[in-house]
Amino acid sequence: MKIVRGGITSAKGFIATGVSCGIKKDSRLDLALIFSEKVSAAAGLFTTNRFIAPPLILTKKNLKKGTGQAVIVNSGNANAATGSRGYEDALEMGALTAKELGIDSSLVSVASTGVIGEPLPMEKIRSGIPLVVNGLRKNGGKDAARAIMTTDTFFKEAAVKGIVGGREVSVGGIAKGSGMIHPNMATMLAFIGTDATISGGLLKKSLRKASDLSFNMITVDGETSTNDMVLCLANGMSGAREIREGSRELKEFQSLLEYVCLALAKMIVRDGEGATKFVTITVDNARNFKDAKKIAMSVGRSLLVKTAFFGEDANWGRFMAAIGYSGVKVDEGEVDIYYDGVKIVNSGTGTGSKADLMASKVLKKKEFSVRIDLKAGKEKATVWTTDLSYDYVRINASYRS
Amino acid sequence: MKIVRGGITSAKGFIATGVSCGIKKDSRLDLALIFSEKVSAAAGLFTTNRFIAPPLILTKKNLKKGTGQAVIVNSGNANAATGSRGYEDALEMGALTAKELGIDSSLVSVASTGVIGEPLPMEKIRSGIPLVVNGLRKNGGKDAARAIMTTDTFFKEAAVKGIVGGREVSVGGIAKGSGMIHPNMATMLAFIGTDATISGGLLKKSLRKASDLSFNMITVDGETSTNDMVLCLANGMSGAREIREGSRELKEFQSLLEYVCLALAKMIVRDGEGATKFVTITVDNARNFKDAKKIAMSVGRSLLVKTAFFGEDANWGRFMAAIGYSGVKVDEGEVDIYYDGVKIVNSGTGTGSKADLMASKVLKKKEFSVRIDLKAGKEKATVWTTDLSYDYVRINASYRS
Repeated sequence: MKIVRGGITSAKGFIATGVSCGIKKDSRLDLALIFSEKVSAAAGLFTTNRFIAPPLILTKKNLKKGTGQAVIVNSGNANAATGSRGYEDALEMGALTAKELGIDSSLVSVASTGVIGEPLPMEKIRSGIPLVVNGLRKNGGKDAARAIMTTDTFFKEAAVKGIVGGREVSVGGIAKGSGMIHPNMATMLAFIGTDATISGGLLKKSLRKASDLSFNMITVDGETSTNDMVLCLANGMSGAREIREGSRELKEFQSLLEYVCLALAKMIVRDGEGATKFVTITVDNARNFKDAKKIAMSVGRSLLVKTAFFGEDANWGRFMAAIGYSGVKVDEGEVDIYYDGVKIVNSGTGTGSKADLMASKVLKKKEFSVRIDLKAGKEKATVWTTDLSYDYVRINASYRS
Repeated sequence: MKIVRGGITSAKGFIATGVSCGIKKDSRLDLALIFSEKVSAAAGLFTTNRFIAPPLILTKKNLKKGTGQAVIVNSGNANAATGSRGYEDALEMGALTAKELGIDSSLVSVASTGVIGEPLPMEKIRSGIPLVVNGLRKNGGKDAARAIMTTDTFFKEAAVKGIVGGREVSVGGIAKGSGMIHPNMATMLAFIGTDATISGGLLKKSLRKASDLSFNMITVDGETSTNDMVLCLANGMSGAREIREGSRELKEFQSLLEYVCLALAKMIVRDGEGATKFVTITVDNARNFKDAKKIAMSVGRSLLVKTAFFGEDANWGRFMAAIGYSGVKVDEGEVDIYYDGVKIVNSGTGTGSKADLMASKVLKKKEFSVRIDLKAGKEKATVWTTDLSYDYVRINASYRS
């Protein structure tokens, strides 16, 4: 596997761009288009929020056959909680894009991100679509990545190359997300393009597996948005033979896809609203993965844990409390906890003031890890999280103004 | 029912006090004692956190017979995650109190609140117990209320009188809590004394019912502590006849107990760490209470909702998102939402910019309500919450230092 520069246009046959159509203030990019020269196998994963935004309802429908060719995305307005008008707007957004591209509208995925509850400014979208179609180009991936940003402070892209079935295959993607981040697709969008050859059905399995180890293992604020999705197009233009279930090729492809998903997921955490710390929480030696994940998430989303990270306070008691209310049966007297290499809890009680002092040095770093050893089994789970700072409050108190 | 001034010593036969024994800095009160002249029926409710602090394990055991006479509480140290030493310390704390009072140690409930994970400073507790026993007095309730405070900014007490079975009965209580507040006894302590005559078993039922409508309906930060408890002593000194299951007297008593529990619960929310808003969230016309409560809690604990309250931004889309991820099946197109009297969402979509403007005036108030009408049934639930401000972060980032 070779990590390469680039993103959504790294794989053969993918072009993209982003333009400004006036939804966001100050001429910032707010309309992105991704296009594959060939009709592709396509798979999507969608928010678990019961109130699914209209564009997602449409895209889910369009992906049912497992094919796709283009993705149109606006930022600045989520087109969520907009009722039947919202659905009509999403339909029109997809249809106009298809018309300009000269393809069938069922091949277009539609996504929106931004403020909930306001109607999509369709005149702006209508005038933007010809611009974004005309702007499509091989080196337009960065602009596409910029055009899907909301409170993001940097654009997010990742790409990798590797041999799949004897041929070089590329996987590249872009993502957005910095708040409302919690597992199961919480306000984040990720679009991935690959020139691998794979069926829509197998691509979906592969994407789910990769997401479960990446996008579903991050938490910033415990919120699950109405608009999140991860989408992957595979156009087969590498010329590699088709990837089959259970094959060596699938393993090779899976590792490429997982790399890109995890790289994008970590970028989202790093860009967590107001985050000053990037923290890797591993729960080790659990009875099973589910228990390990539950505990890691309980700790990773605890406001008391996150404010202690911000305050650089090695307040491990807050870990214990969060483990205790995770819902998992844990023997308190077996728990060991480490900040990087520093053992701060031994068999459920503190290891003393010297360890406290060493741990507080670890906490001064911008990145560190917390390892919770349950001594109960052999499974583990890793979750990525941030601290909770004044800036999280500032950003979210004034989001619409 | 008559609301009266006072707290834990309002009912006949109760005396209390608080002293400083040096656990907290600056000679602040940190050791409280509540005492009933007569052995009382006693009932307690305890944290749902699996890691239960040692004093709670002891108190649970002592309450098994349904009787009690004294409650000893320290603040500044939670005696949690302290292992077997923590249990021995709790035992000693109870035994020393019993000895000074000249009662059996099984009649003493023990509670601790404060930092988790540090051993209880037993020398300070040992020297404090004779002081606190000597200080017991009828007008010492306020000092007891002060001595159980941690990050609380004001002491919390409430009392009420009413006729139960033809006799005047008093119920009074004190509470502490301002952070780590979430249903099912999340870092809060409440102690209630009454001169009603009731069995320990029925008192427990009555206390659970009252708590389910008060302490279990508040949320500040979604955390559930290792140390929380609600305790009630009923000494029968009103001379009223014994309250039996299914009787009119039980209803009369229940309303008194519920008043005190709710008054204390609301004070805890008002004192929410860094809170600048006090928000009542009612979910109306739900299929059942459980659904209504789930949704109200999902909205009430959402960081995005709470930061929008702080920013005085009528961002109702965040309500919709939180309703959507509550786990309850809701018809999005039926949802109406009101800020006080202002209808801001009608059948799932916004009612426009004029309503937005009126709602933003409501949000400027220190107290307001949010009503979510599901139009799905006849049940409702009310939850009390706060905004999330810079000060929440400040308080919790620097708690130990």
